[in-house]
Amino acid sequence: MRTKEDILPDCPVAVTVSLIGSKWKLLIMRNLLGRPWRFNELQKSIEGISQKALTDALRSMEADGIVRRTAYPEVPPRVEYSLTELGESMRPIIKAMESWGNDFKAQAVREET
Amino acid sequence: MRTKEDILPDCPVAVTVSLIGSKWKLLIMRNLLGRPWRFNELQKSIEGISQKALTDALRSMEADGIVRRTAYPEVPPRVEYSLTELGESMRPIIKAMESWGNDFKAQAVREET
Repeated sequence: MRTKEDILPDCPVAVTVSLIGSKWKLLIMRNLLGRPWRFNELQKSIEGISQKALTDALRSMEADGIVRRTAYPEVPPRVEYSLTELGESMRPIIKAMESWGNDFKAQAVREET
Repeated sequence: MRTKEDILPDCPVAVTVSLIGSKWKLLIMRNLLGRPWRFNELQKSIEGISQKALTDALRSMEADGIVRRTAYPEVPPRVEYSLTELGESMRPIIKAMESWGNDFKAQAVREET
Protein backbone atom coordinates (compact mmCIF):
# COMPACT_ATOMS: atom_id res chain seq x y z
CA MET A 1 0.00 0.00 0.00
CA ARG A 2 1.30 3.43 -0.91
CA THR A 3 0.95 5.81 1.97
CA LYS A 4 1.01 9.59 2.02
CA GLU A 5 4.55 9.32 3.32
CA ASP A 6 5.62 7.26 0.28
CA ILE A 7 4.37 9.71 -2.29
CA LEU A 8 5.88 12.82 -0.68
CA PRO A 9 9.23 13.94 -2.12
CA ASP A 10 12.25 13.37 0.11
CA CYS A 11 13.19 17.03 -0.03
CA PRO A 12 11.05 19.20 2.25
CA VAL A 13 11.34 22.18 -0.13
CA ALA A 14 10.00 19.98 -2.94
CA VAL A 15 7.07 18.97 -0.71
CA THR A 16 6.12 22.61 -0.23
CA VAL A 17 6.72 23.45 -3.89
CA SER A 18 4.41 20.58 -4.90
CA LEU A 19 1.61 22.29 -2.97
CA ILE A 20 2.09 25.99 -3.68
CA GLY A 21 4.86 26.22 -6.27
CA SER A 22 3.07 28.35 -8.82
CA LYS A 23 2.59 32.03 -9.36
CA TRP A 24 -1.19 31.81 -9.08
CA LYS A 25 -1.28 29.66 -5.95
CA LEU A 26 1.14 31.97 -4.17
CA LEU A 27 -0.94 35.02 -5.03
CA ILE A 28 -4.20 33.30 -4.04
CA MET A 29 -2.63 32.35 -0.74
CA ARG A 30 -1.49 35.95 -0.20
CA ASN A 31 -5.11 37.08 -0.56
CA LEU A 32 -6.67 34.34 1.57
CA LEU A 33 -4.26 35.00 4.44
CA GLY A 34 -6.19 38.23 5.03
CA ARG A 35 -9.81 36.98 4.91
CA PRO A 36 -12.16 34.71 2.94
CA TRP A 37 -12.63 35.76 -0.70
CA ARG A 38 -15.26 35.13 -3.35
CA PHE A 39 -14.28 33.79 -6.77
CA ASN A 40 -15.01 36.97 -8.73
CA GLU A 41 -13.22 39.13 -6.20
CA LEU A 42 -10.13 36.93 -6.47
CA GLN A 43 -10.20 37.09 -10.25
CA LYS A 44 -10.40 40.89 -10.20
CA SER A 45 -7.65 41.17 -7.62
CA ILE A 46 -5.11 38.87 -9.29
CA GLU A 47 -3.96 40.62 -12.45
CA GLY A 48 -3.84 38.41 -15.52
CA ILE A 49 -5.41 35.27 -14.06
CA SER A 50 -7.98 33.58 -16.31
CA GLN A 51 -11.17 32.03 -15.00
CA LYS A 52 -9.79 28.58 -15.85
CA ALA A 53 -6.44 29.17 -14.14
CA LEU A 54 -8.20 30.40 -11.01
CA THR A 55 -10.62 27.46 -11.01
CA ASP A 56 -7.77 24.98 -11.50
CA ALA A 57 -5.62 26.51 -8.78
CA LEU A 58 -8.48 26.66 -6.25
CA ARG A 59 -9.53 23.05 -6.95
CA SER A 60 -5.97 21.84 -6.58
CA MET A 61 -5.51 23.75 -3.32
CA GLU A 62 -8.86 22.39 -2.08
CA ALA A 63 -7.79 18.81 -2.97
CA ASP A 64 -4.52 19.35 -1.12
CA GLY A 65 -6.36 20.50 2.00
CA ILE A 66 -5.03 24.06 1.91
CA VAL A 67 -8.20 25.85 0.84
CA ARG A 68 -11.79 25.39 2.00
CA ARG A 69 -14.75 26.13 -0.27
CA THR A 70 -17.88 27.17 1.61
CA ALA A 71 -21.24 27.58 -0.13
CA TYR A 72 -23.82 29.67 1.70
CA PRO A 73 -27.45 28.82 0.84
CA GLU A 74 -28.48 32.34 -0.07
CA VAL A 75 -30.20 33.84 -3.07
CA PRO A 76 -28.11 34.30 -5.13
CA PRO A 77 -25.82 31.56 -3.71
CA ARG A 78 -22.64 32.84 -2.16
CA VAL A 79 -19.40 30.81 -2.31
CA GLU A 80 -16.34 31.76 -0.34
CA TYR A 81 -12.80 30.44 -0.33
CA SER A 82 -10.76 30.49 2.84
CA LEU A 83 -7.62 28.87 4.20
CA THR A 84 -7.76 25.70 6.23
CA GLU A 85 -5.55 25.35 9.29
CA LEU A 86 -2.96 23.70 7.02
CA GLY A 87 -3.10 26.61 4.59
CA GLU A 88 -2.88 29.09 7.44
CA SER A 89 0.30 27.33 8.63
CA MET A 90 1.99 28.49 5.41
CA ARG A 91 1.82 32.12 6.54
CA PRO A 92 5.59 32.31 7.35
CA ILE A 93 6.39 31.47 3.71
CA ILE A 94 4.29 34.31 2.34
CA LYS A 95 5.62 36.61 5.08
CA ALA A 96 9.19 35.81 4.00
CA MET A 97 8.23 36.67 0.41
CA GLU A 98 6.58 39.90 1.56
CA SER A 99 9.63 40.89 3.55
CA TRP A 100 11.99 40.18 0.64
CA GLY A 101 9.74 42.07 -1.78
CA ASN A 102 9.66 45.11 0.51
CA ASP A 103 13.45 45.14 0.79
CA PHE A 104 13.79 44.79 -2.97
CA LYS A 105 11.40 47.67 -3.65
CA ALA A 106 13.17 49.88 -1.12
CA GLN A 107 16.47 49.10 -2.83
CA ALA A 108 14.98 49.93 -6.25
CA VAL A 109 13.85 53.31 -4.94
CA ARG A 110 17.29 54.06 -3.45
CA GLU A 111 19.01 53.21 -6.72
CA GLU A 112 16.91 55.75 -8.59
CA THR A 113 17.26 58.72 -6.26
CA MET B 1 10.75 57.46 -18.38
CA ARG B 2 9.69 54.21 -16.83
CA THR B 3 11.90 53.32 -13.92
CA LYS B 4 12.43 49.99 -12.19
CA GLU B 5 10.19 51.31 -9.45
CA ASP B 6 7.36 51.96 -11.92
CA ILE B 7 7.32 48.47 -13.33
CA LEU B 8 7.40 46.65 -9.98
CA PRO B 9 4.02 45.51 -8.66
CA ASP B 10 2.68 47.44 -5.67
CA CYS B 11 2.35 44.28 -3.62
CA PRO B 12 5.68 43.06 -2.23
CA VAL B 13 4.57 39.42 -2.43
CA ALA B 14 3.79 39.91 -6.13
CA VAL B 15 7.29 41.39 -6.62
CA THR B 16 8.86 38.24 -5.19
CA VAL B 17 6.47 35.96 -7.08
CA SER B 18 7.39 37.72 -10.34
CA LEU B 19 11.02 36.66 -9.75
CA ILE B 20 10.74 33.15 -8.33
CA GLY B 21 7.06 32.22 -8.55
CA SER B 22 7.44 28.92 -10.39
CA LYS B 23 8.08 25.34 -9.40
CA TRP B 24 11.32 25.14 -11.37
CA LYS B 25 12.79 28.41 -10.18
CA LEU B 26 12.11 27.51 -6.56
CA LEU B 27 13.80 24.12 -6.95
CA ILE B 28 16.77 25.62 -8.81
CA MET B 29 17.16 28.16 -6.03
CA ARG B 30 17.04 25.38 -3.43
CA ASN B 31 19.99 23.70 -5.17
CA LEU B 32 22.04 26.84 -5.74
CA LEU B 33 21.74 27.88 -2.10
CA GLY B 34 24.12 25.02 -1.32
CA ARG B 35 26.85 25.56 -3.94
CA PRO B 36 27.37 26.34 -7.65
CA TRP B 37 25.90 23.73 -10.02
CA ARG B 38 26.52 22.73 -13.62
CA PHE B 39 23.63 22.54 -16.08
CA ASN B 40 23.62 18.76 -16.46
CA GLU B 41 23.84 18.22 -12.73
CA LEU B 42 20.86 20.49 -12.19
CA GLN B 43 18.85 18.67 -14.82
CA LYS B 44 19.56 15.29 -13.22
CA SER B 45 18.78 16.58 -9.75
CA ILE B 46 15.44 18.22 -10.54
CA GLU B 47 13.02 15.45 -11.38
CA GLY B 48 10.89 16.06 -14.46
CA ILE B 49 12.53 19.26 -15.69
CA SER B 50 13.17 19.40 -19.43
CA GLN B 51 16.29 20.89 -20.96
CA LYS B 52 14.18 23.75 -22.33
CA ALA B 53 12.46 24.46 -19.02
CA LEU B 54 15.81 24.52 -17.23
CA THR B 55 17.38 26.78 -19.88
CA ASP B 56 14.40 29.16 -19.75
CA ALA B 57 14.37 29.31 -15.96
CA LEU B 58 18.12 29.90 -15.69
CA ARG B 59 18.06 32.64 -18.36
CA SER B 60 15.17 34.36 -16.69
CA MET B 61 16.88 34.20 -13.29
CA GLU B 62 20.10 35.49 -14.84
CA ALA B 63 18.23 38.38 -16.49
CA ASP B 64 16.64 39.22 -13.13
CA GLY B 65 20.03 39.32 -11.44
CA ILE B 66 19.40 36.33 -9.17
CA VAL B 67 21.67 33.82 -10.89
CA ARG B 68 25.19 34.23 -12.26
CA ARG B 69 26.49 32.13 -15.16
CA THR B 70 30.25 31.61 -15.09
CA ALA B 71 32.11 29.99 -17.99
CA TYR B 72 35.56 28.58 -17.19
CA PRO B 73 37.94 28.44 -20.18
CA GLU B 74 38.79 24.77 -19.82
CA VAL B 75 38.73 21.85 -22.22
CA PRO B 76 35.94 20.82 -22.31
CA PRO B 77 34.50 24.21 -21.26
CA ARG B 78 32.90 24.23 -17.84
CA VAL B 79 29.89 26.42 -17.08
CA GLU B 80 28.57 26.89 -13.57
CA TYR B 81 25.48 28.58 -12.21
CA SER B 82 25.54 30.23 -8.82
CA LEU B 83 23.50 32.71 -6.84
CA THR B 84 24.27 36.40 -6.90
CA GLU B 85 24.08 38.37 -3.67
CA LEU B 86 20.48 39.19 -4.59
CA GLY B 87 19.66 35.53 -5.08
CA GLU B 88 21.40 34.64 -1.83
CA SER B 89 19.20 37.18 -0.04
CA MET B 90 16.19 34.98 -0.87
CA ARG B 91 17.47 32.24 1.44
CA PRO B 92 14.87 32.96 4.18
CA ILE B 93 12.07 32.22 1.68
CA ILE B 94 13.44 28.79 0.82
CA LYS B 95 14.20 28.17 4.51
CA ALA B 96 10.55 28.90 5.36
CA MET B 97 9.50 26.40 2.67
CA GLU B 98 11.93 23.82 4.01
CA SER B 99 10.69 24.26 7.55
CA TRP B 100 7.04 23.94 6.48
CA GLY B 101 7.83 20.86 4.36
CA ASN B 102 9.58 19.20 7.28
CA ASP B 103 6.63 19.83 9.59
CA PHE B 104 4.22 18.52 6.95
CA LYS B 105 6.23 15.33 6.44
CA ALA B 106 6.49 14.74 10.19
CA GLN B 107 2.71 15.15 10.45
CA ALA B 108 2.17 12.68 7.58
CA VAL B 109 4.31 10.10 9.39
CA ARG B 110 2.42 10.60 12.66
CA GLU B 111 -0.92 10.14 10.92
CA GLU B 112 0.14 6.77 9.57
CA THR B 113 1.54 5.22 12.72
